[in-house]
Amino acid sequence: MMTSRKACVDADRTDPLRSFRDLFDIPPGLIYLDGNSLGPLPWAARRRASDVVSSEWGHGLISSWNTHDWFALPGRIGDKIARLIGGTPGSCVATDTTSINVFKALAAALRLQAQDAPRRRVIVSERENFPSDLYMIEGIVDLLGERDGRPYELRLVDDEHPLADALDDDVAVVLLTGVNYRTGTWWDMDATTAQIHAAGALAVWDLCHSIGAVPIDVTAADADFAVGCTYKYLNGGPGSPAFVWVSPKHAARAKQPLSGWWGHARPFEMAVGYDPAPGAASFLVGTQPIISLAAMEAGVDIALSVDEQQVRAKSLALTDLFIELVETRLARHPLTLITPRDHGSRGSHVSFLHPEGYAVMQALIARGVIGDYREPHVLRFGITPLYLGYADVWDAVEALRIVLDDQLWRAPEFQVRGAVT
Amino acid sequence: MMTSRKACVDADRTDPLRSFRDLFDIPPGLIYLDGNSLGPLPWAARRRASDVVSSEWGHGLISSWNTHDWFALPGRIGDKIARLIGGTPGSCVATDTTSINVFKALAAALRLQAQDAPRRRVIVSERENFPSDLYMIEGIVDLLGERDGRPYELRLVDDEHPLADALDDDVAVVLLTGVNYRTGTWWDMDATTAQIHAAGALAVWDLCHSIGAVPIDVTAADADFAVGCTYKYLNGGPGSPAFVWVSPKHAARAKQPLSGWWGHARPFEMAVGYDPAPGAASFLVGTQPIISLAAMEAGVDIALSVDEQQVRAKSLALTDLFIELVETRLARHPLTLITPRDHGSRGSHVSFLHPEGYAVMQALIARGVIGDYREPHVLRFGITPLYLGYADVWDAVEALRIVLDDQLWRAPEFQVRGAVT
Repeated sequence: MMTSRKACVDADRTDPLRSFRDLFDIPPGLIYLDGNSLGPLPWAARRRASDVVSSEWGHGLISSWNTHDWFALPGRIGDKIARLIGGTPGSCVATDTTSINVFKALAAALRLQAQDAPRRRVIVSERENFPSDLYMIEGIVDLLGERDGRPYELRLVDDEHPLADALDDDVAVVLLTGVNYRTGTWWDMDATTAQIHAAGALAVWDLCHSIGAVPIDVTAADADFAVGCTYKYLNGGPGSPAFVWVSPKHAARAKQPLSGWWGHARPFEMAVGYDPAPGAASFLVGTQPIISLAAMEAGVDIALSVDEQQVRAKSLALTDLFIELVETRLARHPLTLITPRDHGSRGSHVSFLHPEGYAVMQALIARGVIGDYREPHVLRFGITPLYLGYADVWDAVEALRIVLDDQLWRAPEFQVRGAVT
Repeated sequence: MMTSRKACVDADRTDPLRSFRDLFDIPPGLIYLDGNSLGPLPWAARRRASDVVSSEWGHGLISSWNTHDWFALPGRIGDKIARLIGGTPGSCVATDTTSINVFKALAAALRLQAQDAPRRRVIVSERENFPSDLYMIEGIVDLLGERDGRPYELRLVDDEHPLADALDDDVAVVLLTGVNYRTGTWWDMDATTAQIHAAGALAVWDLCHSIGAVPIDVTAADADFAVGCTYKYLNGGPGSPAFVWVSPKHAARAKQPLSGWWGHARPFEMAVGYDPAPGAASFLVGTQPIISLAAMEAGVDIALSVDEQQVRAKSLALTDLFIELVETRLARHPLTLITPRDHGSRGSHVSFLHPEGYAVMQALIARGVIGDYREPHVLRFGITPLYLGYADVWDAVEALRIVLDDQLWRAPEFQVRGAVT
């Protein structure tokens, strides 16, 4: 372990990923530990957004749909995202939002099961899942109602009700989130997918906090569907379009109900009847927000240019360092680690509980260390190897030490609650 | 009628909307008659996009969700759109795509009918509707399957099967498009909605080619739901987010199945169960593409700043002029008007059939007059009073005359088909 700031500075000097920080516009003096909520701006995204607005929209006008191939963007970027998660060309599209893609994947998976295992009615997920995933399940369960007199239902697993106990003959689909948004706990995708399949269910993976953060191989895991966002570790920009991946083994039969014209095999024929495009392309629906979509590609390109094993090694080194420094240097404060110590179960963010978590985070942000607060009591720190170094981690912990030692969080201005994303 | 270019130039001189053209970055020398497909770039949108990327994302990072109120954008812009269509605050949100909003509106309307008129299973629409609307109906019909042993179904009206004949006791919802994307035919929203209600059905209106083009009053029409895009006459940018309007009379009961966290009453509590926000806010789903969304507001603001009656008057004057000039000066060419001559039935674009329509449009575009081609054989000309004048119409018809008189469309390069949106 590095026990001095100098050791951290030395480690940064030999860091093979050191140069990637120059690809981002990060305000000087800021330590940004919230890249798992909104990644920073790649310089290339800024240039691309400017080109799309001024040149492609402004001067190219309608012709840019052809000359700049806007219509192909979801597929082209989707293919790049597929490479990041071990998928094949044509298996992924960049489009819409994660929640809407959850709906498409769930609906498609339930439809496959309605054909192959028509008695199964249960969707399993985690109580600790990102709530929107659960809300989307609620919505589809309510929409589908009963089939043959038996209703669809949501079954939640948690510490007291483990997945193994939930997987009975009624389970149609399991929707799990690779890395948990609060704790940073990482499911073993390979073993869990095998367990789900052994029970006769299909596996839908939410990769929001996983893609760009941990190595993913949807093909090796034999996953059925995957979704995720691009504005966290892929640095795609605020609310940049999400993605949905469809296993090639389901491509011929997978059908999702939001059958819009962008998913049509021949959208410009203006035929009255819907005829889905092959593969993941049929998971497109309507006209996409081109400025946000095009700007997002820059972040995806950066992720493709980096050695994923180097990212993972540095992520583990930085999260190890962060945990150790907090636990040694801030030992007398009521901080409780809720992120796994086991490397195999850890994503790329670290969370501690603190009874005054909200105010502590506000005070820390006021000192230029941007982390995140999540209900209840969670201090969440995103560790992003592309633009964070060892000295950043040292300095962040030192800032947290001052906030806690000097009780800076007691200031009235840090007690007022506002919206946090 | 203006029978000379000079008369057109004179009319431009006294046009009360003349100054609005200066709000847009329109390439010099171009006559842009495709603003009903993609509106041109407002200078303010360019500035806003640059600010959002460089300053709000780049420097504000995660804090911009609060300081720049990104989370409120769909509601704030939605309220502005509501004003444009005669709606009240809280009744509209700017979000997602038109097709996805069609799904939400249809699902919510069908759910209301399942409670109030549970035997009704038919969704009526037009064979000539924009195909994606029909595809979305197909998708929801397939998804819902049978209820109580009776399947949902789509029933299409057309010239031979008028709406009046289709409206029987089985009809739950009617989805119509205000102004037809090909012909420019405008439904009488007030009378048609009354007719739909008299038959016990609910009315969902697609306003894609209507908003910003013709006066709309969803309140006066007593419509139930409305959707539309913002990248045509609102000049919101390529694929800018769409909108969905929910009649206040349904706000308390309307429930749509894409129940994502942005539609939750308290999204940041991270509760396990979904609790919809009041009104149209519950029609939000997932995190929105902020760059595209924020840039779009500039076009909406322009639409709010203009006198809608002046826009309509100029639109009719320009479309009248366009039709008259084509029919008098190009009388010997095989051009067939498919847009209504009756002002009460005309939107703000004009379409002519020509047997070689595709090649004719390519040749016209090559001469700097950008119109649109739509299958089959349709030359479509968007007439947008904010940035087009009478002389533009004169010059466009003159360019078309040369293309036809000189048979310029016969050149081989104009025969090759590409994607057109």
